[in-house]
Amino acid sequence: MSRVVKLAVIPGDGIGPEVIAEAEKVLDAATAGSGIRFDKTRFSLGAARYLETGDTLTDADLDAIRQHDAILLGAVGGVPGDPRLKDANIERGLLLKLRFELDHYVNLRPSKLYAGAPGPLAEPGDIDFVVVREGTEGPYVGNGGAIRKGTPHEVANETSVNTAFGVERIVRYAFDLAEQRRKKVTLVHKTNVLVHAGSMWKRIVDDVAREHPEVDVDYLHVDAATIFLVTNPGRFDVIVTDNLFGDILTDLAGAVTGGIGLAASGNINPDGAFPSMFEPVHGSAPDIAGQQKADPTAAILSVALLLDHLGLRDEAARVTRAVEADVAARGTAARTTAQIGDAIAGAVQA
Amino acid sequence: MSRVVKLAVIPGDGIGPEVIAEAEKVLDAATAGSGIRFDKTRFSLGAARYLETGDTLTDADLDAIRQHDAILLGAVGGVPGDPRLKDANIERGLLLKLRFELDHYVNLRPSKLYAGAPGPLAEPGDIDFVVVREGTEGPYVGNGGAIRKGTPHEVANETSVNTAFGVERIVRYAFDLAEQRRKKVTLVHKTNVLVHAGSMWKRIVDDVAREHPEVDVDYLHVDAATIFLVTNPGRFDVIVTDNLFGDILTDLAGAVTGGIGLAASGNINPDGAFPSMFEPVHGSAPDIAGQQKADPTAAILSVALLLDHLGLRDEAARVTRAVEADVAARGTAARTTAQIGDAIAGAVQA
Ligand SMILES: CC(C)[C@H](C(=O)O)[C@@H](O)C(=O)O
Ligand SMILES: CC(C)[C@H](C(=O)O)[C@@H](O)C(=O)O
Repeated sequence: MSRVVKLAVIPGDGIGPEVIAEAEKVLDAATAGSGIRFDKTRFSLGAARYLETGDTLTDADLDAIRQHDAILLGAVGGVPGDPRLKDANIERGLLLKLRFELDHYVNLRPSKLYAGAPGPLAEPGDIDFVVVREGTEGPYVGNGGAIRKGTPHEVANETSVNTAFGVERIVRYAFDLAEQRRKKVTLVHKTNVLVHAGSMWKRIVDDVAREHPEVDVDYLHVDAATIFLVTNPGRFDVIVTDNLFGDILTDLAGAVTGGIGLAASGNINPDGAFPSMFEPVHGSAPDIAGQQKADPTAAILSVALLLDHLGLRDEAARVTRAVEADVAARGTAARTTAQIGDAIAGAVQA
Repeated sequence: MSRVVKLAVIPGDGIGPEVIAEAEKVLDAATAGSGIRFDKTRFSLGAARYLETGDTLTDADLDAIRQHDAILLGAVGGVPGDPRLKDANIERGLLLKLRFELDHYVNLRPSKLYAGAPGPLAEPGDIDFVVVREGTEGPYVGNGGAIRKGTPHEVANETSVNTAFGVERIVRYAFDLAEQRRKKVTLVHKTNVLVHAGSMWKRIVDDVAREHPEVDVDYLHVDAATIFLVTNPGRFDVIVTDNLFGDILTDLAGAVTGGIGLAASGNINPDGAFPSMFEPVHGSAPDIAGQQKADPTAAILSVALLLDHLGLRDEAARVTRAVEADVAARGTAARTTAQIGDAIAGAVQA
């Protein structure tokens, strides 16, 4: 069997290129001799590109990226406080623009505590859940504005937009995923305050739940959910939630499962109309860039999600197992980014 | 010296009456022989009242409450899922209505890890910070709505409203508080996504910071803030943030400092135009109500905040010290709600 996968690679800024180099190593190792060939196009996007050209993500960039089967992204964002980036907002103009333009409505973020991974909890228990974060609606839509800007009479609004269409498709995805896992879905929202959006989410979860009688469903307010993430994370299987709550919960989840050095994510368009994008949850960390200090594991686990998305389940499982073994064997001795990548790539091939 | 303080007491639902009974015991113990007399009016408000009369908070209730110098509240809210409460929304109609109508723009939530308090973190370090949560704006304003409700074409919006007036007053409060503490203010927001509200918050913090050159200022995105709350909570002194982020962060903060059984809060109108309201952060926990299982410590610490707000600093300090001693001495033996209250009240008087 021979198959060509067109992969757009966006190394990005800061530690992005370093962790992506290791992720590619592991991708190559996992697919060596399998007849699958990755036809890669590199896109130079991010703060560095913006500083050079003033462009964040042009229509031509988008068109070119759309021609691919999938995207692997490192991290984007310049040095915090850099005055030349004051008006750039690389996050909105690049990362969120990709998620919105490519209709990445599933922001998939698994959280698993690997044996040997360091974590802040005294008694973490078994942690293995997935946050299914809505990716194209909610407070992220950019429907905000301000009047009397810069004056003592300024009013700044931000509107969260939620549609039944958008909520239903993410809720269905969450239930389908739960069917393949421990069959539990937890809706996280703030229905007692955000009553309009909240009651629509609740209604749709209740409706879809009726089609999945074997799935347990519960509900938590977002504030209570953060408590359980540190006192009883083992209670979660699949969490389904909106864009902003998902952002908050997944950083916290990353922290309790050994740090965002291990947290991977997929920005998925399940319909296949657009290429899905895989990226570590961490940022570009410009303070340690170019020093081989970054942990490439999150980028490597993002490769596992990418392989899984492409239907290459065995290859994905081999990457995950190699990471698991590597994490379990990690001592206190510091390794370079490349050393970690080499070790995992080696284990994948073994 | 003799002084009469008119206190509105709202025991509320579930465990509310039990914890408030102990809080009152401690209040009496702390002020016995001081010449301060609390003239108390009891208000029967909450889910129970709603089920009896259909009223949540009438104009007459509000008028009567406004005649007081301060409010002590237990907890409100019925049994989750009670069909008779389906359309009630006690939270919006009572708790949030009180906060908004009485212009409680400071939602003050101290987080301190007392020696001996149980906590989920393996290495918590010294935790002693205060969240200054804005209480009258943001996503809590109730400016939402839905069209095509209940259909596949529903669109539900929620608008966060933020004013320079509202942000400036809470930011000033935070800086003033930091001046009396370790002189550090951390703004928590999501400026890279909620750009309009976020840039106004940022600008106002920068402006007020200029008047407080001795206060260190930093900024964290809300997602990153949750990470630090579990990996390095000792880095925080005063956190200033919006209504929703403050809600989320303070539940998490409560969890890392020994559970919401210890988390107290003040809903404060610093101008004194309206009575301020003191309440534990926890809810009404109907599942354990009436069983003397609830921990009254959060309600008792709310009494300390109340005393402090009334300028009774010595009395407040005595309550805090008594709680501190009680927590330090807590073994694993279960005590009833009243036993904990008696012990702390006894220590306050000793
Ligand atoms: C960089 C930022 C816009 C982004 C988000 O908020 O989604 C990040 O925090 C994430 O979680 O991927
Ligand atoms: C009950 C609810 C409306 C309330 C809030 O969201 O403010 C509670 O969670 C709190 O923190 O006091």
